[in-house]
Amino acid sequence: MTEQPRGGTEHTADQRLRERAVAVIPGGMYGHQSTASLPAAYPQFMRGGRGARIWDVDGNEYVDLMCSYGPVVLGHQHPRVEAAAAAQAALGDCQNGPGPVMVDLAELLVRTVRHADWAMFAKNGTDATTMCCTIARAQTGRQQILVATGAYHGAAPWCTPRTAGVTPQDRANLGHYTYNDLASVRQAAAEAGDDLAAIVVSPFKHNAGYDQELVEPEFARGLRALCDATGAALILDDVRCGFRLHLGSSWEPIGVDPDLSAWSKAIANGHALAAVLGNDAFRDGARQVFVTGSFWFSAVPMAAAIATIAALQEERAVEAMERSGAALREGILAQARSWDLAVNYTGPAVMPYLSFATDDDHQLADVFAAEALRGGVYLHPRHNWFVSAAMTGDDIARALEATDHAFAVVRKQIGNPRKTGE
Amino acid sequence: MTEQPRGGTEHTADQRLRERAVAVIPGGMYGHQSTASLPAAYPQFMRGGRGARIWDVDGNEYVDLMCSYGPVVLGHQHPRVEAAAAAQAALGDCQNGPGPVMVDLAELLVRTVRHADWAMFAKNGTDATTMCCTIARAQTGRQQILVATGAYHGAAPWCTPRTAGVTPQDRANLGHYTYNDLASVRQAAAEAGDDLAAIVVSPFKHNAGYDQELVEPEFARGLRALCDATGAALILDDVRCGFRLHLGSSWEPIGVDPDLSAWSKAIANGHALAAVLGNDAFRDGARQVFVTGSFWFSAVPMAAAIATIAALQEERAVEAMERSGAALREGILAQARSWDLAVNYTGPAVMPYLSFATDDDHQLADVFAAEALRGGVYLHPRHNWFVSAAMTGDDIARALEATDHAFAVVRKQIGNPRKTGE
Repeated sequence: MTEQPRGGTEHTADQRLRERAVAVIPGGMYGHQSTASLPAAYPQFMRGGRGARIWDVDGNEYVDLMCSYGPVVLGHQHPRVEAAAAAQAALGDCQNGPGPVMVDLAELLVRTVRHADWAMFAKNGTDATTMCCTIARAQTGRQQILVATGAYHGAAPWCTPRTAGVTPQDRANLGHYTYNDLASVRQAAAEAGDDLAAIVVSPFKHNAGYDQELVEPEFARGLRALCDATGAALILDDVRCGFRLHLGSSWEPIGVDPDLSAWSKAIANGHALAAVLGNDAFRDGARQVFVTGSFWFSAVPMAAAIATIAALQEERAVEAMERSGAALREGILAQARSWDLAVNYTGPAVMPYLSFATDDDHQLADVFAAEALRGGVYLHPRHNWFVSAAMTGDDIARALEATDHAFAVVRKQIGNPRKTGE
Repeated sequence: MTEQPRGGTEHTADQRLRERAVAVIPGGMYGHQSTASLPAAYPQFMRGGRGARIWDVDGNEYVDLMCSYGPVVLGHQHPRVEAAAAAQAALGDCQNGPGPVMVDLAELLVRTVRHADWAMFAKNGTDATTMCCTIARAQTGRQQILVATGAYHGAAPWCTPRTAGVTPQDRANLGHYTYNDLASVRQAAAEAGDDLAAIVVSPFKHNAGYDQELVEPEFARGLRALCDATGAALILDDVRCGFRLHLGSSWEPIGVDPDLSAWSKAIANGHALAAVLGNDAFRDGARQVFVTGSFWFSAVPMAAAIATIAALQEERAVEAMERSGAALREGILAQARSWDLAVNYTGPAVMPYLSFATDDDHQLADVFAAEALRGGVYLHPRHNWFVSAAMTGDDIARALEATDHAFAVVRKQIGNPRKTGE
């Protein structure tokens, strides 16, 4: 990796690419990977990565705490996954029909995820959440779907968080509830009446820009009971969490099984794949719907997924991530205390979200993230982070060195060392 | 390739995979690659391919006239494309931001496609068609979209051809017209009134199961004029045709430029990629919408697309496909005449559709396809075929040998050699 000046100057490779991008990509970039709302120092364009280390196009190295916004769970360029992908690519990928790996993977997922009796595959997380809704409607003959206020379930017109180009009809069949508030779900279900097709829920509350909230088991069990009573589908949107919290559906540890679950991101360690898993009660609905895509049957990402799941099991990756996540959390919380800074560090240790007290406009979060980046760790000021199984003690030490420096700058910016927000 | 008994017996690898698939995939398979509605001899599972030859999981070899339903345009395992993909994969694929190839590809597409001032990328053709509609609505502030009756624009609830699980609201903002019938478009536009956001149109009429119809240039110009007059977006759905008919938008040869175009399938020779291209009049709408996906910024398919477009240019692939397509058409039509069979062979030579006269239930088409398959050519009884640039004279000769045999069987099945359907 060639080393060049980090950020700031107009002569970086990143800056030159940005200038070219503005001409041929609307706004210069779009979607969740646009750095337009991130501190200026964030590189827009990345070169590559290995394990838990990544490099931007100017050769700057970072410890990766975003993991490509979730897909990378075993670390970048995992040898076993890439070997499986290359071996399949040498045979065939996008063909007139799926390869044998599609059956192997469906069987593996059915064995691995408790509630799953069957599997279907797609490309985007949004494909999977949308398919879950369509299958639930086909099975129940009903139309209303309940979602938690502020939850992210994808970027199609029915669910995208920005409503430009969205019509009222796209969301005419949605009702809303408050996460972890069973009474609000019951009220929304009552409003849907006998037209309630499904309740969609995330494994925990991970709305971008807000402190995270773990699910209350009583809430999860209440959703399950409500769906059992009404015949609606319980849909778990495991796109972001799947295989990071548990090697199975993310609610298995609390004993609640959904009817349908949506998967993507981590299931093939960065290869483009999504999946819907379902139980036998919804198999017929799944058979009725017509869903497809030009690359949905491609064999390479399926081979990568099989290798990913095997590596997750054999490397005991969930436990490894939990250990790294816990070390990171302890280190960061100790640093915040040492700098006398009031922070909230919420969500599971492997998918944490850091916020500063009384920092509703994320100004301190931006300062912290920009300084952490400068110190060599890539994290996010307004989105949960992701810990991968590739993190070593050295990676964590380097990350904590960077965050300690970042806290120091935040402390300096605030001025006198009184606790904020208490 | 190991050779095993072709089809028919329950001991084939394909049959064993089907039996396993029924347990873990609803209906055994789904979407456009399900062989449930194809003649029984069609293999469900494919092993791989090279150039214009493909192999099923039992080792049977076929000349490929489906090209993975469109994505494979240069032939399977194209060395230049696969080398570019492998080189990018060794650096990075799914990262915290796109690679430099995203800018390279956007620039290349803007240079290659006349109407394009900018590009955005996604994974599915459906992503691209849906994005076009959303961008048109964001730009115009209107909601109504016109589509041709029976046209396929993807498999999301707003457009999927089977309506299980679809709500009336998903299609509340759609109007319909008849392809090549300008009066019907004007009537639908009048009904939409000042709420007309866009007209979606395919480069030619390629509704599955029907004879194809080339676009009448006057119709295309009429759509352009109507959009100019109303401010609606003209959206060309080039997902299926793009880069097979012309190295640019498929309507460039007739001199009609859309405002927005949807691409996927062939642009990366089988790697998972979709694109929306647009002109400056719709750049602001494109900037407003929030569309994204976990793998939309992945670098490998973009590197593959750059290599694909370069190879299409340097190999003069469109001309090569036209030559092969013309040879195939001439051969098949001569065979049909020699067997005294009345057939329709419609659409562009590189994307032909074969039907038998008075065969509305596709019974003869099924017999023909099954026999062609037995003879070693993989084509489709109810969907247009695809010619790739990898077809050699030998491939065409082998394909024609198989179709001649298939015509003979059809002739025998019909019985006395009178012309059918005339």
